[in-house]
Amino acid sequence: MTDVMSIDPRTGATVEVVAPETSTEQVDQLCRAALAAAPVLEAIGRAGRASLLRALADALQARRDDIVAVADRETALGSTRLNGELTRTCYQLELFGQVLDEGSYLEATIDHAGDTPMGPRPDLRRLLVPVGPVAVFGASNFPLAFSVPGGDTASALAAGCPVIVKAHGSHPATSQLTLEVMAAAAQAAGAPDGTLGIVHGQQAGADLVAHPAIRAVGFTGSVNGGRALLEIIERRPDPIPFYGELSSLNPVVVTPAAATERGEQIGRELVGSYTLGAGQFCTKPGLTFVPTGTDGDRVVDAMAEAIRGSSTQVLLNQGIAASYTRISDGLANAPGVKEIARGADAAASGFRAVPRLLATTGTELPAAVTEECFGPVSVVARYHAQDDLFAALHTLPSSLTATVLRGQQETQLPQAISRQLRGVAGRLVYDAYPTGVAVSWAQHHGGPWPSTNSQHTSVGSSAIRRFLRPVTWQGAPEEVLPEELTDGYRGIPRRIDGTLQLPH
Amino acid sequence: MTDVMSIDPRTGATVEVVAPETSTEQVDQLCRAALAAAPVLEAIGRAGRASLLRALADALQARRDDIVAVADRETALGSTRLNGELTRTCYQLELFGQVLDEGSYLEATIDHAGDTPMGPRPDLRRLLVPVGPVAVFGASNFPLAFSVPGGDTASALAAGCPVIVKAHGSHPATSQLTLEVMAAAAQAAGAPDGTLGIVHGQQAGADLVAHPAIRAVGFTGSVNGGRALLEIIERRPDPIPFYGELSSLNPVVVTPAAATERGEQIGRELVGSYTLGAGQFCTKPGLTFVPTGTDGDRVVDAMAEAIRGSSTQVLLNQGIAASYTRISDGLANAPGVKEIARGADAAASGFRAVPRLLATTGTELPAAVTEECFGPVSVVARYHAQDDLFAALHTLPSSLTATVLRGQQETQLPQAISRQLRGVAGRLVYDAYPTGVAVSWAQHHGGPWPSTNSQHTSVGSSAIRRFLRPVTWQGAPEEVLPEELTDGYRGIPRRIDGTLQLPH
Repeated sequence: MTDVMSIDPRTGATVEVVAPETSTEQVDQLCRAALAAAPVLEAIGRAGRASLLRALADALQARRDDIVAVADRETALGSTRLNGELTRTCYQLELFGQVLDEGSYLEATIDHAGDTPMGPRPDLRRLLVPVGPVAVFGASNFPLAFSVPGGDTASALAAGCPVIVKAHGSHPATSQLTLEVMAAAAQAAGAPDGTLGIVHGQQAGADLVAHPAIRAVGFTGSVNGGRALLEIIERRPDPIPFYGELSSLNPVVVTPAAATERGEQIGRELVGSYTLGAGQFCTKPGLTFVPTGTDGDRVVDAMAEAIRGSSTQVLLNQGIAASYTRISDGLANAPGVKEIARGADAAASGFRAVPRLLATTGTELPAAVTEECFGPVSVVARYHAQDDLFAALHTLPSSLTATVLRGQQETQLPQAISRQLRGVAGRLVYDAYPTGVAVSWAQHHGGPWPSTNSQHTSVGSSAIRRFLRPVTWQGAPEEVLPEELTDGYRGIPRRIDGTLQLPH
Repeated sequence: MTDVMSIDPRTGATVEVVAPETSTEQVDQLCRAALAAAPVLEAIGRAGRASLLRALADALQARRDDIVAVADRETALGSTRLNGELTRTCYQLELFGQVLDEGSYLEATIDHAGDTPMGPRPDLRRLLVPVGPVAVFGASNFPLAFSVPGGDTASALAAGCPVIVKAHGSHPATSQLTLEVMAAAAQAAGAPDGTLGIVHGQQAGADLVAHPAIRAVGFTGSVNGGRALLEIIERRPDPIPFYGELSSLNPVVVTPAAATERGEQIGRELVGSYTLGAGQFCTKPGLTFVPTGTDGDRVVDAMAEAIRGSSTQVLLNQGIAASYTRISDGLANAPGVKEIARGADAAASGFRAVPRLLATTGTELPAAVTEECFGPVSVVARYHAQDDLFAALHTLPSSLTATVLRGQQETQLPQAISRQLRGVAGRLVYDAYPTGVAVSWAQHHGGPWPSTNSQHTSVGSSAIRRFLRPVTWQGAPEEVLPEELTDGYRGIPRRIDGTLQLPH
């Protein structure tokens, strides 16, 4: 049986053996435990699960220093970032507690029996119910916020679904530690055994997705990884929902007015955004449109200067480091692309990457620059006239985000750019950078393929919907109805005979 | 080029040539026209699209007699049923007009900038926007309500998405006529060219699903048909959402108390439900659990008597007729199954089916009886003790519906059955039959695979969600925001800083 190793990306050395890879039999046991836990987790109700989520947040907070230390050793993301990520993770758990308290997410809908133009209608009452056990695939780049204690787990537990996480191989020790902290807190809070589980190893992940007890999959990773899991799902006798966040270019447009007003600042900030976390954000700005001319030159010069002042960054794992070198070299040498700056190569050991700034030189956008490259590299495309800009925007793939940096009070061009970019992005960012993704009710972190394959992802309150399905009760006696669908209930927003009513 | 024929299922004779099969080039032209129409259809706004839907309903009503006559000639469903179906179809268009007026479906959400435990949060505003052109695959069994003018089309147009329908080969003339009536009405109502299109032929359907302009697919049909389209979608460079309604067994449980109180009535009504529309309803009750003993015998005897008093019914097409004979014969001859009654075989010409009643005889449920068989056949399974019943329920696949027929005031057993059946059904029906599917806010017509592959289907107001995707605007100047996300707007329910607010 192969062991799962925790590796220090700063040195490339193995630090510890975390666990053996999870066997097919163990995956089966975990899935059976999750299936048995499902009705119990539903039965503790919204208030019970809100308490559970808060208890998980408290337990993670209480072990903050240990968790950050292990995560830093495994990911090299640094304690400032990882402390912030843990804060985000706990806030996310608490936000889903609010979502449960508020109750709109149940979409409680009652149509009383009555006559319609179609004839008599029976009494119909609709509510969302949990789908059952959920498999969550942790992401490499967020060992907390998109891994064991992340948005997939928080939203699935909130929905009432037990969770089994496939730990990412880049941070197995962090995954194991956070799982143990959360499982103990869940038990102490009265949640059933089987509420939370973890598996290690690629085969265990495949076994998990194929297991009949698993009713949905949340995944953050590569297009190829997502496609491979989708193939396993399509071979199931009962294909299940797969919610994947896959790949994103995140284009940025700098308008001429913005370049004139604050070209240098924009250049510095863009580099700050694309080298954040060593360029390993799904929202990293990968392609920036900058006007030609001296104002645009100031943007690019500031970017080049910032990159030349940078030095090697540590990537998450050997695979990402190897891909970074191969893909960024290929991109730099692609027809119509040149490198205009690179950071200092202070390479010693470990999984290291030299930050790079590339530029396209042709009038048409080379296809290579519209694909995501994970790591601290980004491409600048210069545009002469607005027509050139819009022709280029028209060729972009879909992204999680698209950003417009505009001049003070500038309206007309930003409007036209917004119209074009709305078709290829899930979030439109103005006068800021896409790498910050606030967790909130109005957040959306998704977009058409390849950025995601689904309407909802793991960020924001609507993430819970992925793990619920509607059920309608027709002519049901009151004693079989969920409380929220009984006539006398008043605790949550409900739609009654077509009219939305607030709790009272 | 192959011609598409309209065939009379009562005789099997070809009545007319409807159109040539649509060529790949023609599919491309239709898709380009739909793509061009998309921003215009969105720009006419919610009020404009509500008017459009009402104009479509009025136009269909105005041609009621012609439409029903053509549909009856092609489907043999009879003018009473088809008049009812047209009424339903028009009501459905009008319901989506109400959904647009009401505006909750946009999920307008505003989080103003502010401080959070995660740090400062930017202004975030979220709304659902149309996905773009939609392909709709008409169903064989509902030439109106699940075809050209059906729920998929109504909900996609409501969302702001142009629609291209793949006409079902069982009723191409009805499809062509209704499309022409609706396209003319759409044009008169000011909708852009390309709002509605139609294609004929299997290759045209495949071309449609593969076309880059198509952004989602609505499908009602067989598991095999759905799997074939999913394979085309998975080969796209950008896989798109596929919303399939596929197959459903629709189990029914008769409790001992119900059998005692009204066994004969239940038997007659069950046969009425499963032979309705020649058993070609996706909600046909395919398997009924009846207690052993004399009360249960009365249920089964009444079913057998009703079936023996029936005679051949006309099926929709040659393929369905051939499948019916093959599958129902196979089922009748499966181990543990026997035929207990059949209708009179008054076969002459045409696509005819003899109604049949089968029963399982073993203590365990044979696997064959848990698969859908389209047409007027159903299976009775007798249970001795409640344990036997629950063991059998535990083996059922997921269905669109599950039905409980209970005694007056009976509570305990219906509760236990409901708990078990909720896991394998989208709609729980009490003391009624599943074949009626009201269109309303609280309706749900779906369930886990194989009944559907998605959370939402074409029935009920939530059908619109399939053709929308979220977009969040971050720090956006007011002039780029949709009206519904501006601070001063008050016309629809919105969630503001976490609190749901009604229009005022």
